[in-house]
Amino acid sequence: MSRKILRVDVKNDQIDVEEVSEDYVALGGRGLTSQIVFDEVDPTCNPLGPHNKVVFAPGIVTGTVAPTSGRISVGAKSPLTGGIKEANAGTSFAQKLAKLEIKAIIVEGGPVKSGYKALRLDADGAELVDADKWSGKGLYEVYEEIEEEFGEEIGIAGVGKSAELSGHNSGIAFNDMEGMPSRYAGRGGLGAVMATRGLKFIFVDDEGAPGVEIEDKQAFDRGREKLANALTSHDVTKPGGALNSYGTGVLVNIINEAGGLPHRNFSRGSDERASKVSGEIKAKEIEEREGKRPHRCSPGCLIGCSETWTKEDGKEPMGVIEYESVWALGPNCEIYDLDVIGELNRQCNDLGMDTIEAGNTIAVAMEGGVADFGDEGAALEMMDEIREGTPLGRILVNGTEFTGNAFGVTRIPTVKGQAMPAYDPRAIKGIGTTYATTPMGADHTAGYAIATEIMGVGGDLDPLSPEKAELSRNLQYSTAVIDTTGHCLFTAFAVLDIPEGLEGMVEEVNGVLGADLTVDDIPEIGKSVIDVEREFNKQAGFTKEDDRLPEFMREEELPPHNDVFDVSDEVLDEVLS
Amino acid sequence: MSRKILRVDVKNDQIDVEEVSEDYVALGGRGLTSQIVFDEVDPTCNPLGPHNKVVFAPGIVTGTVAPTSGRISVGAKSPLTGGIKEANAGTSFAQKLAKLEIKAIIVEGGPVKSGYKALRLDADGAELVDADKWSGKGLYEVYEEIEEEFGEEIGIAGVGKSAELSGHNSGIAFNDMEGMPSRYAGRGGLGAVMATRGLKFIFVDDEGAPGVEIEDKQAFDRGREKLANALTSHDVTKPGGALNSYGTGVLVNIINEAGGLPHRNFSRGSDERASKVSGEIKAKEIEEREGKRPHRCSPGCLIGCSETWTKEDGKEPMGVIEYESVWALGPNCEIYDLDVIGELNRQCNDLGMDTIEAGNTIAVAMEGGVADFGDEGAALEMMDEIREGTPLGRILVNGTEFTGNAFGVTRIPTVKGQAMPAYDPRAIKGIGTTYATTPMGADHTAGYAIATEIMGVGGDLDPLSPEKAELSRNLQYSTAVIDTTGHCLFTAFAVLDIPEGLEGMVEEVNGVLGADLTVDDIPEIGKSVIDVEREFNKQAGFTKEDDRLPEFMREEELPPHNDVFDVSDEVLDEVLS
Repeated sequence: MSRKILRVDVKNDQIDVEEVSEDYVALGGRGLTSQIVFDEVDPTCNPLGPHNKVVFAPGIVTGTVAPTSGRISVGAKSPLTGGIKEANAGTSFAQKLAKLEIKAIIVEGGPVKSGYKALRLDADGAELVDADKWSGKGLYEVYEEIEEEFGEEIGIAGVGKSAELSGHNSGIAFNDMEGMPSRYAGRGGLGAVMATRGLKFIFVDDEGAPGVEIEDKQAFDRGREKLANALTSHDVTKPGGALNSYGTGVLVNIINEAGGLPHRNFSRGSDERASKVSGEIKAKEIEEREGKRPHRCSPGCLIGCSETWTKEDGKEPMGVIEYESVWALGPNCEIYDLDVIGELNRQCNDLGMDTIEAGNTIAVAMEGGVADFGDEGAALEMMDEIREGTPLGRILVNGTEFTGNAFGVTRIPTVKGQAMPAYDPRAIKGIGTTYATTPMGADHTAGYAIATEIMGVGGDLDPLSPEKAELSRNLQYSTAVIDTTGHCLFTAFAVLDIPEGLEGMVEEVNGVLGADLTVDDIPEIGKSVIDVEREFNKQAGFTKEDDRLPEFMREEELPPHNDVFDVSDEVLDEVLS
Repeated sequence: MSRKILRVDVKNDQIDVEEVSEDYVALGGRGLTSQIVFDEVDPTCNPLGPHNKVVFAPGIVTGTVAPTSGRISVGAKSPLTGGIKEANAGTSFAQKLAKLEIKAIIVEGGPVKSGYKALRLDADGAELVDADKWSGKGLYEVYEEIEEEFGEEIGIAGVGKSAELSGHNSGIAFNDMEGMPSRYAGRGGLGAVMATRGLKFIFVDDEGAPGVEIEDKQAFDRGREKLANALTSHDVTKPGGALNSYGTGVLVNIINEAGGLPHRNFSRGSDERASKVSGEIKAKEIEEREGKRPHRCSPGCLIGCSETWTKEDGKEPMGVIEYESVWALGPNCEIYDLDVIGELNRQCNDLGMDTIEAGNTIAVAMEGGVADFGDEGAALEMMDEIREGTPLGRILVNGTEFTGNAFGVTRIPTVKGQAMPAYDPRAIKGIGTTYATTPMGADHTAGYAIATEIMGVGGDLDPLSPEKAELSRNLQYSTAVIDTTGHCLFTAFAVLDIPEGLEGMVEEVNGVLGADLTVDDIPEIGKSVIDVEREFNKQAGFTKEDDRLPEFMREEELPPHNDVFDVSDEVLDEVLS
């Protein structure tokens, strides 16, 4: 294989090209970022100090014509959780990087607090260019300027003002198909890790790139076809299916009806106002405003769950508003206006912040008396505070737990310091089991039990039952594999129900690597990825006490089911042990 | 024994009087608070949530005529460290409580965020009275008002604005001999634990109190005499000795000359400007201003290290400025003016904050760009921000690590979230060994290696040598015993060098308890206290990774010795194991 690893040290103005070691050849995406972080980063290091590194890796099949596989993983020690982190995004950036035969970029060295650089990559090589002129600016404006200067077709990864503030809520923004900073490896504060290395952007131009080498074309093509058939036939993923028609927002009404959509900082699981911000309403609005829906986050996606939201007059296109973002910036703050939510989402993208963490932060600030719940103007002003780097902004940019502690709030919905997504674990306990036990901190994508508990995919379990160890474990292992291959997690809806789809995914991987894996190998591969992550966390000082939901969720009943999170510590401890 | 335990629940307006269980009879002070916290508080609970409790306990001999024994311990799960906490203070409050035959007060229940109460105790009983009128006010004014209303002779324990803000830097202020709020159980945020239980003050009137029962008067008197002889003959503790003449401030020049006085947020270990804020200069100024020096923190102290500082014109008396406070609010912020330091100290007392944590917080804020080092006006303004509860105040009141994280600082001098006192561990490694390993977070009083490393008490070791496991262990065990008896830690200077003094201390305890302990029992008793504390922390999720100094102190050389903290992890792990 001619693929390589780039090692970048801005402080010492150094770029090294390294061969891919034997141990890394069969890895990609999350499997690779987690392994490199484990191998190279001291688990006890200060996440924003000199010893942390941020690693970018496209998935194994990313850059090929494998369907719905334009994912890039970003890994580091997280300043938010203090543990290992992988966050991934769907973006053509991932595919361009893979086509340049770059298996991973390791950004190390620092800290550097000013004199930001951008890493520019193309078929001829790599160089560091000055990026200070974009410091402090909003990313929508900056991404336009970058495309003007370096070409409309480049892939961009970048960090915003939130990362420049060393905010523990700072993500990495990749450009979407329109060039906007809307595709996020958002969670865990990876942006601050990148910024403190002195790197503000990565630009990738794949013109003349060799493309991804495929060892066994026949296996690959066979797999690709099987997976494509599965994706285009499953009700959730097919053209005109749920995701294609309404995007992830299709869940607003479903989860609200299940009593699991948290309103007012996780105080109620349903509220009739939720329907005002549903995916169905959003899709209709997008159509009326001549925004885009359906839409793809990256070329080659067969699902097309994305969209372009605009202001009411059709202006200021801003990319997708995902279900979790609608919820976090909306119902969780008692805000039920899609235009306000859209503007908050745009501000998050512009500042370089994760929307889930930001929405939880606003809600907790409201609970702490900074503003009333539902005060839309106050929520928008909080974004200004961050942009201006005021003391209040400094609090908010560090996320939910930090903000809760600043304002004496005890109802803080976090695990390992990371805020919960849009599913209340008291009403849907498998997802709560995942929140508690994944090495990532509260993260729905780590083992999306909603598929089985609510959507009937891959089985059908009572969401209120606390017996979810097996479900969460199986999903966490299979997810780690999907995140390693570079496929979007949404392919899981199809492959969990359609065995040939899962076979196809494995055959694609075999095709690229020249390997002979089978579907039966999946749990073991997934376990090996998660074991590495758990070992990192253990060495960082994590114990089983970190695998717990917050006290208030174990004691305070959530309407309408009036249930608490009653998955026992023993069950939690057996999920990944 | 007729001693009792009071259990107070403000939320439910409940006061219960309980017998002292067999297990607690031979305990007092730290030994008792740590045992009750271990027995009654879930180590994983939210420190400001409903399950935490704050426990007050005078020492075993406190309230008797045992010399220099007016100490009270306060214990809880700390919101600052997340682990168990004991902080103690020298105050007549301790003696009055003991004379009322109250072995411990357990404050539980809540949270209560407004409608504060005070617990009023006298020989006739206990009652809860309204204390809301004192909410939000400075403690100097409030303590005067309380004494006007309830009598000049009462003992007061109280929390200030910092605790009302749920600040993780909020201590418990006891009144000094002039009635001012200057005697602090300052460390670890215990004030916020008390405030969130809804209790703002405890008033103790010991008129007509029965006094402390002594089981074996002969043993007690014999012990008392031996200890008194030791205290009045040792150079450090005797009348006209170092502590009596200059107070703890005598250390400013000594530690600066040893290269271990941290200046500019632990950037240098010495600076010639230190002499401007020395104990010698302070004592001279106090004399000129007609302040008080020497002075006692509580009746029956034979050392008399305390003082009353005033403004330049002799007005606004404010109690002691300890060495650690001078350093934290002075040299560590590059402030070398005793009047500014005095005003900052007064503000801390007034707001209910620990000076060590507050000074470190200001220094870290300065490093984070909030103000320039040495900017005296800016430091004073930070106190106003806390008083007003502004967002910046909300950051600062949560302490050093919180402030460092808010402003992206990586040089944060904390262990287990608690800021370091006035000795740089790179220049004096035994105290660094204590900072790392004590269950309390960075705390000089937990095992005061300075005695041996700098002052030649109890031996004489090179401060730069990293082989300090045995020294730190022995001191931590003996300190846990002293903190349990109710003697001031400064008695250790005498009893470490004069064997009869130590015998006397044990005989006093035997006298009160009717026990037959010997000096040889001390290490085992100390170990048993610390083992309970370590077990609590372990159950709270602490690991050996929490027994480490910050990264920058292991890598950044400290002038003038240009040494790093090089006590190995293995040595740290064997200190208390």
